[in-house]
Amino acid sequence: MFLTRKAEFSASHVCSNPDWTDAENRAVYGMAANPNGHGHNYVVEVTVEGEADPLTGMVFDLRELKQVLHEEVIEPMDHRFLNREVPPFDRITPTTENVAIEIWKRLKPRIDGPKIRLFNVRLYETADLYVDYGGGA
Amino acid sequence: MFLTRKAEFSASHVCSNPDWTDAENRAVYGMAANPNGHGHNYVVEVTVEGEADPLTGMVFDLRELKQVLHEEVIEPMDHRFLNREVPPFDRITPTTENVAIEIWKRLKPRIDGPKIRLFNVRLYETADLYVDYGGGA
Amino acid sequence: MFLTRKAEFSASHVCSNPDWTDAENRAVYGMAANPNGHGHNYVVEVTVEGEADPLTGMVFDLRELKQVLHEEVIEPMDHRFLNREVPPFDRITPTTENVAIEIWKRLKPRIDGPKIRLFNVRLYETADLYVDYGGGA
Amino acid sequence: MFLTRKAEFSASHVCSNPDWTDAENRAVYGMAANPNGHGHNYVVEVTVEGEADPLTGMVFDLRELKQVLHEEVIEPMDHRFLNREVPPFDRITPTTENVAIEIWKRLKPRIDGPKIRLFNVRLYETADLYVDYGGGA
Amino acid sequence: MFLTRKAEFSASHVCSNPDWTDAENRAVYGMAANPNGHGHNYVVEVTVEGEADPLTGMVFDLRELKQVLHEEVIEPMDHRFLNREVPPFDRITPTTENVAIEIWKRLKPRIDGPKIRLFNVRLYETADLYVDYGGGA
Amino acid sequence: MFLTRKAEFSASHVCSNPDWTDAENRAVYGMAANPNGHGHNYVVEVTVEGEADPLTGMVFDLRELKQVLHEEVIEPMDHRFLNREVPPFDRITPTTENVAIEIWKRLKPRIDGPKIRLFNVRLYETADLYVDYGGGA
Repeated sequence: MFLTRKAEFSASHVCSNPDWTDAENRAVYGMAANPNGHGHNYVVEVTVEGEADPLTGMVFDLRELKQVLHEEVIEPMDHRFLNREVPPFDRITPTTENVAIEIWKRLKPRIDGPKIRLFNVRLYETADLYVDYGGGA
Repeated sequence: MFLTRKAEFSASHVCSNPDWTDAENRAVYGMAANPNGHGHNYVVEVTVEGEADPLTGMVFDLRELKQVLHEEVIEPMDHRFLNREVPPFDRITPTTENVAIEIWKRLKPRIDGPKIRLFNVRLYETADLYVDYGGGA
Repeated sequence: MFLTRKAEFSASHVCSNPDWTDAENRAVYGMAANPNGHGHNYVVEVTVEGEADPLTGMVFDLRELKQVLHEEVIEPMDHRFLNREVPPFDRITPTTENVAIEIWKRLKPRIDGPKIRLFNVRLYETADLYVDYGGGA
Repeated sequence: MFLTRKAEFSASHVCSNPDWTDAENRAVYGMAANPNGHGHNYVVEVTVEGEADPLTGMVFDLRELKQVLHEEVIEPMDHRFLNREVPPFDRITPTTENVAIEIWKRLKPRIDGPKIRLFNVRLYETADLYVDYGGGA
Repeated sequence: MFLTRKAEFSASHVCSNPDWTDAENRAVYGMAANPNGHGHNYVVEVTVEGEADPLTGMVFDLRELKQVLHEEVIEPMDHRFLNREVPPFDRITPTTENVAIEIWKRLKPRIDGPKIRLFNVRLYETADLYVDYGGGA
Repeated sequence: MFLTRKAEFSASHVCSNPDWTDAENRAVYGMAANPNGHGHNYVVEVTVEGEADPLTGMVFDLRELKQVLHEEVIEPMDHRFLNREVPPFDRITPTTENVAIEIWKRLKPRIDGPKIRLFNVRLYETADLYVDYGGGA
């Protein structure tokens, strides 16, 4: 059984590889390579897998899930310039893909347990574009 | 191939285990344990799996799917207090998880057939919280 | 200039006039008259009117608006059975219209000031039904 | 890892099998068999699977994906009567299922490569009805 | 006080003036002039103005409003080719503007009364484009 | 009669008054004063008022409206850091209020004519917060 909780944060980022020239970055990332940065209202959907506990009827404590999401994602990333303020995005390009992977890495040890595991992180950059990451390659 | 149909119903519920004290229920369910109940506009997404029929180009008759959803979910649950009026929620806590499992149990025998099977029930309690149930543990 | 902030609360209610019989209430309110109650995820949009302050560029302090909304609407109404727990709905039928009027009455004295006034309260009962109240008859 | 991009097109269609009588088509497709046609704002979500490239942090070039979607789906289908103007819907009933399969067939050879493959096509006919096709039977 | 109810219908249309050549129509309406037609999931929001009745707490009987909307708009326009099947669109171009005006004309005599009046018709052609008509020029 | 078109742009901004200290800006704008900036997917709804032309049935040419919006808003603001790249936000704090006023000023001379006038600019900073500006004080 799967339980999914949605949250939102507003951040800015630049898509560029620091080893490349501006022209190379423009060629790969287009407008997203603007070094001044631009921003999004990111929407993250976190899905955990487990059984509904026979006593509580719940897969996971919703308040705990909300708290973990707040501590690991919302608090450090909301109203931030990801490249400058949120490691590892000083070294790793904060594409939607890489932000989703980073959210996965932050949440995985906080959620996984004997009866529960983090199953998927979905990250919307805009309403028309999102990625899903489930820990695979 | 998968076909999904969405429907909505407005109901109230209390999250509490009748074997526990009020304080114990508050500790587990927070505000949702308020014995007077509170409510939601539940959104249910029912997904069936099958092949598109070569003659009709359809996986399942949409009007039949709508009718089954109406009879098994909307008619009995819409504008109801789940704990008092919709068995088995007089005995089982109507968490989102348990409501989704109950919807699965009601729909499964009405939908499954030689060429079609119920694949997933997604139930949104709010826009930010949903569960998926596909018959597993 | 107008500034609008949206918030959400989940509550249950019964639409019935205590001076009428069950049959009379059913005739007027249909399924909404079910005495056990049913519920909604109410969405409220509060619109204030004022000028953008030349120094701050803001019509109203967003954090103050959020706080007022929380104190006057979300905290007292969220996860409540309106008829039993939220005056004046023990005496006044909590139709969407009356809930919007009550929200207006609670917010008006907290928001109005020399440069700002509450302009409109929009209340969605479902995604397909809402009322607007601006203090008129 | 999965990357999904959403696009929209407005088209009209008739659901009918040309080998059947009007009465037979009405019996199978209901109002959708109206020979004059009717229309929808179709929303298509295209999901590709691949790894985030270590150098770019991207699964797939977003501008290329947008361009392929435009050439294969939006340009030929937007503002069209599918049965009359978009093969093979002169021969095959353009049910939501069949339109999704056709979009899959058009995109598959344009997207698949050594490191990337088309994973799923989701097609919404309305906000309440959608199909998913991933190349299976 | 204002009460708004939303409904949806799927229809096809052609934007063209029968007195003009194809080239002239293409120049004015672009792709929407395609004589085969194309379609939309139209969303209509009907707003009525009145006072909340002191006895019922309601501006207007919701079931009556739903019924009037069904009879005057949904039943005649849903799953139709507007130009061919829904007068006056055999003579008047069914732009979003003209469809909204026609809906207004159909609803006005059915809704207006001593204590209530139709206030606005909003019609979405897509999520990104809508018109509002309140009976003015 | 009113015609509204929606568009979206992704930008970053800092809410701060350059004449104030960091502490003063934090006190007024909270997290939005972070000097590194943060970002949003801004949604703008532009409403024009006019009569439906008796010959075309249109209030305004939709392609022209889209083009004006692109030239005056989307092209200069999308994927930009407003404070650094979009005058007058080097001098004026880009609060939602001030960005809406600037969009109004840019669009007004391009839209107003003998039969048409810009009526309102609505700007969403997030799904839960928006401002409306119609040229008043």
